Amino acid sequence: MTAPSREAAAALDAADPLAGFRARFEVPDGVIYLDGNSLGMLPTAAAARAHQVIHEEWGRDLIRAWNAHGWIDLPAAVGAKIATLIGAAPDEVVAADSTSVNLFKLLAAAVRLRPGRPTILSEADNFPTDSYVAEGLCDLLDGRVALRLVAADELEDALDDQVALLSLTHVDYRSGRMHDMAALTAAAHAAGALVLWDLSHSAGAVALDLAACEADFAVGCGYKYLNGGPGAPAYLYVARRLQDGLRQPLTGWMGHAAPFDFAARYRPAEGIARALCGTPPVVALAMLEASLEVILEAGMAAIRAKSLALSDLFMTLVEETCGGLGLTPISPTAHERRGSQVAYRHAHGYAAMQALIARGVIGDFRRPDVMRFGFAPLYLRHTEVWDAVAALRAVLADEEWRHVDAAAAGPVI
Amino acid sequence: MTAPSREAAAALDAADPLAGFRARFEVPDGVIYLDGNSLGMLPTAAAARAHQVIHEEWGRDLIRAWNAHGWIDLPAAVGAKIATLIGAAPDEVVAADSTSVNLFKLLAAAVRLRPGRPTILSEADNFPTDSYVAEGLCDLLDGRVALRLVAADELEDALDDQVALLSLTHVDYRSGRMHDMAALTAAAHAAGALVLWDLSHSAGAVALDLAACEADFAVGCGYKYLNGGPGAPAYLYVARRLQDGLRQPLTGWMGHAAPFDFAARYRPAEGIARALCGTPPVVALAMLEASLEVILEAGMAAIRAKSLALSDLFMTLVEETCGGLGLTPISPTAHERRGSQVAYRHAHGYAAMQALIARGVIGDFRRPDVMRFGFAPLYLRHTEVWDAVAALRAVLADEEWRHVDAAAAGPVI
Repeated sequence: MTAPSREAAAALDAADPLAGFRARFEVPDGVIYLDGNSLGMLPTAAAARAHQVIHEEWGRDLIRAWNAHGWIDLPAAVGAKIATLIGAAPDEVVAADSTSVNLFKLLAAAVRLRPGRPTILSEADNFPTDSYVAEGLCDLLDGRVALRLVAADELEDALDDQVALLSLTHVDYRSGRMHDMAALTAAAHAAGALVLWDLSHSAGAVALDLAACEADFAVGCGYKYLNGGPGAPAYLYVARRLQDGLRQPLTGWMGHAAPFDFAARYRPAEGIARALCGTPPVVALAMLEASLEVILEAGMAAIRAKSLALSDLFMTLVEETCGGLGLTPISPTAHERRGSQVAYRHAHGYAAMQALIARGVIGDFRRPDVMRFGFAPLYLRHTEVWDAVAALRAVLADEEWRHVDAAAAGPVI
Repeated sequence: MTAPSREAAAALDAADPLAGFRARFEVPDGVIYLDGNSLGMLPTAAAARAHQVIHEEWGRDLIRAWNAHGWIDLPAAVGAKIATLIGAAPDEVVAADSTSVNLFKLLAAAVRLRPGRPTILSEADNFPTDSYVAEGLCDLLDGRVALRLVAADELEDALDDQVALLSLTHVDYRSGRMHDMAALTAAAHAAGALVLWDLSHSAGAVALDLAACEADFAVGCGYKYLNGGPGAPAYLYVARRLQDGLRQPLTGWMGHAAPFDFAARYRPAEGIARALCGTPPVVALAMLEASLEVILEAGMAAIRAKSLALSDLFMTLVEETCGGLGLTPISPTAHERRGSQVAYRHAHGYAAMQALIARGVIGDFRRPDVMRFGFAPLYLRHTEVWDAVAALRAVLADEEWRHVDAAAAGPVI
């Protein structure tokens, strides 16, 4: 195989059915953005919706806006849109709180549905906050439940009759490796366990079908491929068959059957609404809703096809043009095993990524030595992928990373 | 006493040192807003800050904005500003999550600090979500902890050696009755219990001094007198002396000692940061910060003085001009016992409030029969208070409530 030319990449752009969606985003000049898997770009419609909610709804209608503009329905309305993206029914998802808080709700609810089974099973490389939240629950329950972490390839063997819940992130945040959701869910169910999927690194970039997999629970964040903005509201999914028995412990007033009765005692709402807790973050939910409408218009099939085309192009170009430059690929090549990001180990990965960013090609770095590149199909061009690999090759071939101040590290959400 | 004239109210406006602050808000035409205790008005600076964060920070700098614009520090920075309003040290408050979620964190942490004491004590008329969240925790802990609700005047007697935590809302959401924070905190401490104060209905309108009271914990919301916008982030306070031993169960990555190390195991941050959980809601926090700056500029002493002047004027006018119209006052007259709202029972309270709102005077209603009026000193005029009471008198005297569709009820957050 020879490396695709820039002209070939331009031809892919010309034939791209999603090419027009780039104009729906505020794309800054001088940037090739390969970090939409951390923080999606700003959809123009989200900015406009924020302006509308702030000035025309809050500013003008004040307290009356809760009814007049449907604010109170936003968690369900936004949840229904996310449901379409992840293969769930509209009444199986609500948007609320953070991913971590939603994890706590569902981990607690899950272990209460499997009394006598003291184990939450996960993988050692799960996204850290998922493990941290499980630790917090186990600690609160004084050891009645324990978190067990095993390697990914040991998960099926570890599914014994002590496991209440298998809790996994669908796409690995470093390698982009994607679990077989259907197979693992079936294996967990065969062992009598429930399953929770963290979709933060897949929803909006990977086609998902929670219903077909018979998944029990899911959570995910709104600020990566869903483009809801920094710290956007998260969401949670509970299969309808489990909703009536759901006892989640964060029993705030928005989960009450009649929150505006101000009754003395808690009575959970019917259905998914019982998973809500506090007052909904209106401006942020409205922004997320506007962002989701762009994704729904594009459609997940087209998005996934372009995601794979972009990441295939990136991987091929790196393989064909960056040989001998110290990059070790750690992402699966098979489509059915890969999310929408690819990653490479490099001995000087941190400094190399900083040098790349200085050139306007924005990926990110994960310890200890992982250079990570995400592909958000709605605003990324094939020619940008081509140019990004050219920049990467130059950074590595010229050892530009030698000139980077390695102390300038900072958070990457 | 004779009723103050409208000219007298106008003279108070002319002498009002806070009069200029009204121009810092987007005040809609045709409205007298007596519901700032439910949802504060839009500060112009908050709208401008949202625009800046969305377009200039997120839109232009994308993932780099986490460092470049201090996003990651917002929970602490906003918390420090709230701390100034409530008499706490800057490192004793963070802004995060919802009031309900923060309650869960601190209720769980409190009962773990008092092992062997199985009671969370509160009052029967506490704001419902506060009780609901305590119920959820007790339920999760399988009865090892129980919520005990007593009447407000029985609280001190109920402080026995079984009480781990006294959890109260400082200002009653219906009557505006304000607890004696110093006395109740001292009584709880004398009984060996910890104390948590919900400041949602007092912060930003009532001068508070958590340090002088030696309060242990507090929570509060950002969308009432703090004017942060609908569903704005909430906050929590932990006295510094309790921070090292704080074990709150929502152990998300933002509470980790080194969140960007992506370590496998949770290790709580030093200090108040361990009370954080998920990724901070950046746009909402930035809006809240801009709103707080307006309050800090005005100063709590001036705000509290005007709050009392406004509510005194309202109560005097109702007493002098609305006699025989069926209003029964339920708010304390003594300043030291009253927050920044007053309330009246009326047999047709719901319909009367709807009729009043139809006249542009926006208060709200709480079941079963309470008409509630809040006084937000930064944007309310004395003449508006005078006009509001005139409208109330007309609604009741003319029985305008007979023409209201009582089925048009809706939520009031």
